Amino acid sequence: MDSPWDDLTLAFSHTSMFPFFDIAHYLVSVMAMKRQPGAAELARQNPVSSWFTAMLHCFGGGILSCMLLAEPPLKFLTNHTNVLLASSIWYIIFFCPCDLVSQAYSYLPVQLLAAGMKEVTRTWKIVGGVTHANSYYRNGWIVMIAIGWARGAGGAIMTKFEQLVKGDWKPGSDEWLKMSYPSKLTLLGSIMFTFQHTEHLAVSKHNLMFFYTVFLVTTKITMMVTETSSVTLAPFEDTLSRVLFGWQKQFSWCEKKSETKPSSNGTGSSASKPTAGASESVKKKHAKKTG
Amino acid sequence: MDSPWDDLTLAFSHTSMFPFFDIAHYLVSVMAMKRQPGAAELARQNPVSSWFTAMLHCFGGGILSCMLLAEPPLKFLTNHTNVLLASSIWYIIFFCPCDLVSQAYSYLPVQLLAAGMKEVTRTWKIVGGVTHANSYYRNGWIVMIAIGWARGAGGAIMTKFEQLVKGDWKPGSDEWLKMSYPSKLTLLGSIMFTFQHTEHLAVSKHNLMFFYTVFLVTTKITMMVTETSSVTLAPFEDTLSRVLFGWQKQFSWCEKKSETKPSSNGTGSSASKPTAGASESVKKKHAKKTG
Amino acid sequence: MDSPWDDLTLAFSHTSMFPFFDIAHYLVSVMAMKRQPGAAELARQNPVSSWFTAMLHCFGGGILSCMLLAEPPLKFLTNHTNVLLASSIWYIIFFCPCDLVSQAYSYLPVQLLAAGMKEVTRTWKIVGGVTHANSYYRNGWIVMIAIGWARGAGGAIMTKFEQLVKGDWKPGSDEWLKMSYPSKLTLLGSIMFTFQHTEHLAVSKHNLMFFYTVFLVTTKITMMVTETSSVTLAPFEDTLSRVLFGWQKQFSWCEKKSETKPSSNGTGSSASKPTAGASESVKKKHAKKTG
Repeated sequence: MDSPWDDLTLAFSHTSMFPFFDIAHYLVSVMAMKRQPGAAELARQNPVSSWFTAMLHCFGGGILSCMLLAEPPLKFLTNHTNVLLASSIWYIIFFCPCDLVSQAYSYLPVQLLAAGMKEVTRTWKIVGGVTHANSYYRNGWIVMIAIGWARGAGGAIMTKFEQLVKGDWKPGSDEWLKMSYPSKLTLLGSIMFTFQHTEHLAVSKHNLMFFYTVFLVTTKITMMVTETSSVTLAPFEDTLSRVLFGWQKQFSWCEKKSETKPSSNGTGSSASKPTAGASESVKKKHAKKTG
Repeated sequence: MDSPWDDLTLAFSHTSMFPFFDIAHYLVSVMAMKRQPGAAELARQNPVSSWFTAMLHCFGGGILSCMLLAEPPLKFLTNHTNVLLASSIWYIIFFCPCDLVSQAYSYLPVQLLAAGMKEVTRTWKIVGGVTHANSYYRNGWIVMIAIGWARGAGGAIMTKFEQLVKGDWKPGSDEWLKMSYPSKLTLLGSIMFTFQHTEHLAVSKHNLMFFYTVFLVTTKITMMVTETSSVTLAPFEDTLSRVLFGWQKQFSWCEKKSETKPSSNGTGSSASKPTAGASESVKKKHAKKTG
Repeated sequence: MDSPWDDLTLAFSHTSMFPFFDIAHYLVSVMAMKRQPGAAELARQNPVSSWFTAMLHCFGGGILSCMLLAEPPLKFLTNHTNVLLASSIWYIIFFCPCDLVSQAYSYLPVQLLAAGMKEVTRTWKIVGGVTHANSYYRNGWIVMIAIGWARGAGGAIMTKFEQLVKGDWKPGSDEWLKMSYPSKLTLLGSIMFTFQHTEHLAVSKHNLMFFYTVFLVTTKITMMVTETSSVTLAPFEDTLSRVLFGWQKQFSWCEKKSETKPSSNGTGSSASKPTAGASESVKKKHAKKTG
């Protein structure tokens, strides 16, 4: 317990997010907002709306988790220090003369540093969400996973919803819930921290926080340097998906039937040839009734 | 009080929904979801999103009533047994080899049984919603009606909203709030149970539950067998609508004026002929100002 | 303290909103709803939906502030008297024979009286919202401003959202958060009452209420009589905007750089000529990476 390694990770897990990591998080969030087309002009024409959007980008995860737990979504506004910090960063980024901050941010090392620090705050948010949900629902592990996930990755959902309402963005049926890579990592982390909290995972919390943070930061920086969007989880996902949802493929003797299945889904394709079998005719009767 | 009839209805009102009726409800809900075009492919490509949609279909009414009472919308997740049950049914329906469940479900008797059992859960949900709202707002009978209605029929609203957000469905101004037939029946039931609860309706609760359930199940099965969509309420509605909203038609001496009325609604039709009268000219002046 | 003037404003600040001012508010709200194209027909075809929309118009601010404070959005339904009053006014306006109410309302003096009385209720709502938020979060002055604003001007947001969901209205990216003139005035009032409440503004509450109400009513009536949409705040806004967001324009030596800035915003304009400078090339590299 008292090994130097434990001391190190324990000290790491007690790091305060407040001034520097929070600043990095707000910086990355507001810069991501500024890169959207039209954001800079909107800030000049309607600063209140732009400030509101910036707050959603900075505090989106907290707002979402508050809504899911029926706490006031405005609770983040009571933390005056953080709101003023985020507002200052929004102000500096959008209204600094000569766009100095944007130019400084365009150096890759600055971006790497800020992005890495932002990923550190993600771990803290997940742990905070899991602990907070546990104080509501003892042993409610599904809720704990959901709240940890919402607080860690909910900002993306809030900002997408905000864009939807503002009409900047039309949803396609295939993209709304397609999970981004950070979202998947956050889900994974939320599951791990929940199981650690319910003591199904025999590892101390500060060790898990340390390793998960290192993993987050290295993957993020690797992705930024190599300019790829998602690497490491693909084989893991494929295996899991094949185990959970792909084992039906082995039943080759019903392959033919399942090929003709889509015709009963109401899509109205007329391709299903009248092959034999009682079940087929039943299915058709059914399709006629519901179509 | 101790007649055999009362014994029967009392025993009926104490039936537990848990294993079998809940299964029927989840089965009908997830099958309705699967019949939407694209649902089967979505489940293979993005199981998390499909699972989330299935949960909305299964627990939508409870989520909506929680939101309306400012309770955590995630509260349903703390009932692990029901969530796992619904998840299992979702898994079996979407990933069973050879689509066995869908084929079994395509037999009409199976559908009738499941749909009938689902309607039984509706009664229990309305009663639960009314009682729950009463524990918050004693004598708040409008809230009781609303919560009973939301819990009984809110799943449809939640799933429509989810489709709207996902972009699967564009709203038309005429269809969003057009009430479906089950929705109307649920509203009627919610009103009856609320008045029973506030003792304005002199009938015992178990009798009312029994008769309302029998009415729900018989109309549902009749509708499924005869393949009609709504039968019984139409004359009742017509009468009510004529009494409440149609009595103005008797005032034939102002028929002419109300015919020219739509022109002041801002629709910009230029059909209003300049008939005489001071009020007409005032109206025109007004339309010009607001148009 | 006991001057006749103080007596007058104190008596004014104790005026009850209940019967008459509330009626004026409901009247103006429902008439605004009726003027939307299609509202009159919708009321005949689907009275429940029309009633629901009318309630949103009448109680929208309260519903929004309840949601922001995680109180039940249905709480307004427990005030039976007000709900019945608003429902009666909805009924009379939409179903009165010969459309008598609409014709009476089309006289300008009636409109002026109703609109003036509605503005009085706005002051009371702002004060109520600020006080209510203070009971939750002592010293949470940002929350107090937000709740006062939401309760005073949130009805417009709720009704726009309702139209969005019903498909009556497609949002453009430039109009959703563009603040209307009443919305700006309400924000100003909410800030003033919050600072009065936290004792940063050395004026008694009843005096502030009196002067703010007089200001609201006179601007509203002036706007209605002169048929303009916004007058008085423009120079104030311009000054504030120039002080807060326009001082960067003085730095003329970086004007040229900021002109070429939009090209790195991802809008994909190819107008940025390859002028010299290390920072320019860095910016381009960055634009390529994020574009």
